[in-house]
Amino acid sequence: MMFSYMTHLSCSKCSRTYNPDTVQQLCECGSPLLVNYDLKKLAKDFKPNELLIRNHDLWRYHELLPVQSPENIVSLGEGMTPLITMKKLGSDMDIAHLYMKDEGIAPTGTFKARGAAVGVSKAKELGVKGLVMPTNGNAGAAWSLYSSKAGIQAVIIMPGSAPAMIRSEVASAGSHLYLVNGVISDAGKIAAKAAADFHLYDVSTLKEPYRIEGKKTMGFEIAEQLHWETPDVILYPAGGGVGLIAIYKAFKELQELGWVGSKKMPRFVAVQAEGCAPIVKAWKEGKRESEFWPDSRTVAFGINVPKALGDFLVLQAIYETNGCALAVKDEDILKEQKNIIRKEGAFICPEGAAAFLAARKLRKIGWIKENERVIVINTGIGLKYMDNEEINLPVLQPDESIDSLPVLP
Amino acid sequence: MMFSYMTHLSCSKCSRTYNPDTVQQLCECGSPLLVNYDLKKLAKDFKPNELLIRNHDLWRYHELLPVQSPENIVSLGEGMTPLITMKKLGSDMDIAHLYMKDEGIAPTGTFKARGAAVGVSKAKELGVKGLVMPTNGNAGAAWSLYSSKAGIQAVIIMPGSAPAMIRSEVASAGSHLYLVNGVISDAGKIAAKAAADFHLYDVSTLKEPYRIEGKKTMGFEIAEQLHWETPDVILYPAGGGVGLIAIYKAFKELQELGWVGSKKMPRFVAVQAEGCAPIVKAWKEGKRESEFWPDSRTVAFGINVPKALGDFLVLQAIYETNGCALAVKDEDILKEQKNIIRKEGAFICPEGAAAFLAARKLRKIGWIKENERVIVINTGIGLKYMDNEEINLPVLQPDESIDSLPVLP
Repeated sequence: MMFSYMTHLSCSKCSRTYNPDTVQQLCECGSPLLVNYDLKKLAKDFKPNELLIRNHDLWRYHELLPVQSPENIVSLGEGMTPLITMKKLGSDMDIAHLYMKDEGIAPTGTFKARGAAVGVSKAKELGVKGLVMPTNGNAGAAWSLYSSKAGIQAVIIMPGSAPAMIRSEVASAGSHLYLVNGVISDAGKIAAKAAADFHLYDVSTLKEPYRIEGKKTMGFEIAEQLHWETPDVILYPAGGGVGLIAIYKAFKELQELGWVGSKKMPRFVAVQAEGCAPIVKAWKEGKRESEFWPDSRTVAFGINVPKALGDFLVLQAIYETNGCALAVKDEDILKEQKNIIRKEGAFICPEGAAAFLAARKLRKIGWIKENERVIVINTGIGLKYMDNEEINLPVLQPDESIDSLPVLP
Repeated sequence: MMFSYMTHLSCSKCSRTYNPDTVQQLCECGSPLLVNYDLKKLAKDFKPNELLIRNHDLWRYHELLPVQSPENIVSLGEGMTPLITMKKLGSDMDIAHLYMKDEGIAPTGTFKARGAAVGVSKAKELGVKGLVMPTNGNAGAAWSLYSSKAGIQAVIIMPGSAPAMIRSEVASAGSHLYLVNGVISDAGKIAAKAAADFHLYDVSTLKEPYRIEGKKTMGFEIAEQLHWETPDVILYPAGGGVGLIAIYKAFKELQELGWVGSKKMPRFVAVQAEGCAPIVKAWKEGKRESEFWPDSRTVAFGINVPKALGDFLVLQAIYETNGCALAVKDEDILKEQKNIIRKEGAFICPEGAAAFLAARKLRKIGWIKENERVIVINTGIGLKYMDNEEINLPVLQPDESIDSLPVLP
């Protein structure tokens, strides 16, 4: 049996195909490349219950990943994040079967570890020595740390307004970090020029074909954790939207393999912030692509992406699954985040809170039905966003004691 | 089959036993209580390969945990952290089989989630409405968040010098947080008084018998991840030392169950900082208990514990397994931490770095042999300790580009 069942790369828009044994970026037509596998052969060779004895990380699905030789795997133990029942929140929202796929419980604290693990492993396999990446922060941290482990030099370009903690994280990893007075699209232009000038692998979102394969494993895990049943709705906070595209690709592959039923797809929901909602706008207008969103801003830093290269793939996943796209307000995101911490003890990030808030709204208008199985992706730990504002706390001396306490519930 | 095979509580020093169906704190003699199970019966009823189909969290070992009814489980998806091969670091240290059990990949970002999950679940089962805890920070964060999920009111008392991020984390969870101008033993006295004054469950380290059971699952997982083989050496950064006591208890139980061989125990190493090394001092002097360490201080905040209630159990585990105890310098800890981030891409905490440093030293003097299987426990994510100092980074304008890059390796 082969370690990977990858066959070739194909363009997401035109009919061109590419060889995966050399470094590839975009298709000649300017569109992202996708990875193809020999699913028919794999369906014959392998049954999902053979997964049970494998390690609890995303490499358990190695036949469906692009790395061809196990010695190229660069792993920090990523994947197999928990799928947690949210009973109290679900009852609050009137959703009986509400789950959180908690991607905060991951190396580097976000789902970006998946893309970085597979992307960097494949870069190592292809002999890459240096790479460049524009990022809103968390992807930069993940790619920096995996690059360090792989011995690949990373150049990271990040808006200066990215959270301080993530800046420090990237710098600690030993990457070359540059800040830009602008948003991620400005960082992207600088990255493209640096890639050309210094012969670096440009690992901007979807400009390399492999991070999507890493993120795809979220879909495999959701299916495996639900004992190969397909959920009804998956809500995803969409910036570049690769996670959503990837989970959609995962379920398509699982259907073709026959590991899940072939009739039902989850309805995909792309959640954005009102201050940066290009995909929501495109969906409302029935368009196939989004337009650049000027002066974008939101507290959910990871989804501040004014124009995503893969927007048409996100929209396609929404249209083909009868999904939808929804924008929510920053102040409501922060309120929902606080509510979830206090009710469920889960210190999730604002992006995750945005997706939960969207679930609440979609249930209220009846788009989500009471007994549907609803999965919300929390993309990272809330800790990374903490501004460490000085909170006003009571301070005791060693010989003092607590005088009074609020009444217990 | 019973959900839990717990039978009773027994004193770790005298012969008294206690009923686990009501709230218990210390034994009448002032010593911690330990949980006992009917291991003979479990050995007959259950085989470890039956674990394969279970969820990838610590509740997969529920027969060996004290929670008697699954509906009392309060879970954020804790446990089954990865056991990662550290090839580059191992080759640097001349340890061919070096592994990291990465407890940073956990809810709340530290191994404290294990103790909190089982401790809070059992408190819920016992009908507890309010609890109080003195903490150096991370345990307080974990117990706060799990208490929120359980609907239990938590009062947390923490040295004012605890990392700012952890203070904010605890406060976000909605706990009653007090700072004390002192160290954890000062916080402990205030907690004891508050417990008496307000009828709170005192969940100070080892004053409640159940957190150790949660932490024990680290040992079960290490054994299961090594396919039920016993490693040669386990290094643990020891503050209160409960993690070490717990892993030792796990291997004793596994031996009695016959799930691992009965002849070999791992040698346990307690790692402390030179600025707070009461257990190392006691071990060097061949003593069974430690003395209070005055003016303790270390950058590895989690192991700044001047006198641990369970010191005698830590020392017992070391003596009985031919282990040892070792103190390391703060500046060397920080150097090793940086080395590990850059070499292995793992952003570990200073406590974890201290344990890796100890492995390096013990290999150098030949105490660890070249081909031994060595497990280092990283107790949490480094992120939580970041001071977000302003680093000096190059800032570009959107129309600028990168002029030069250091030569690629």
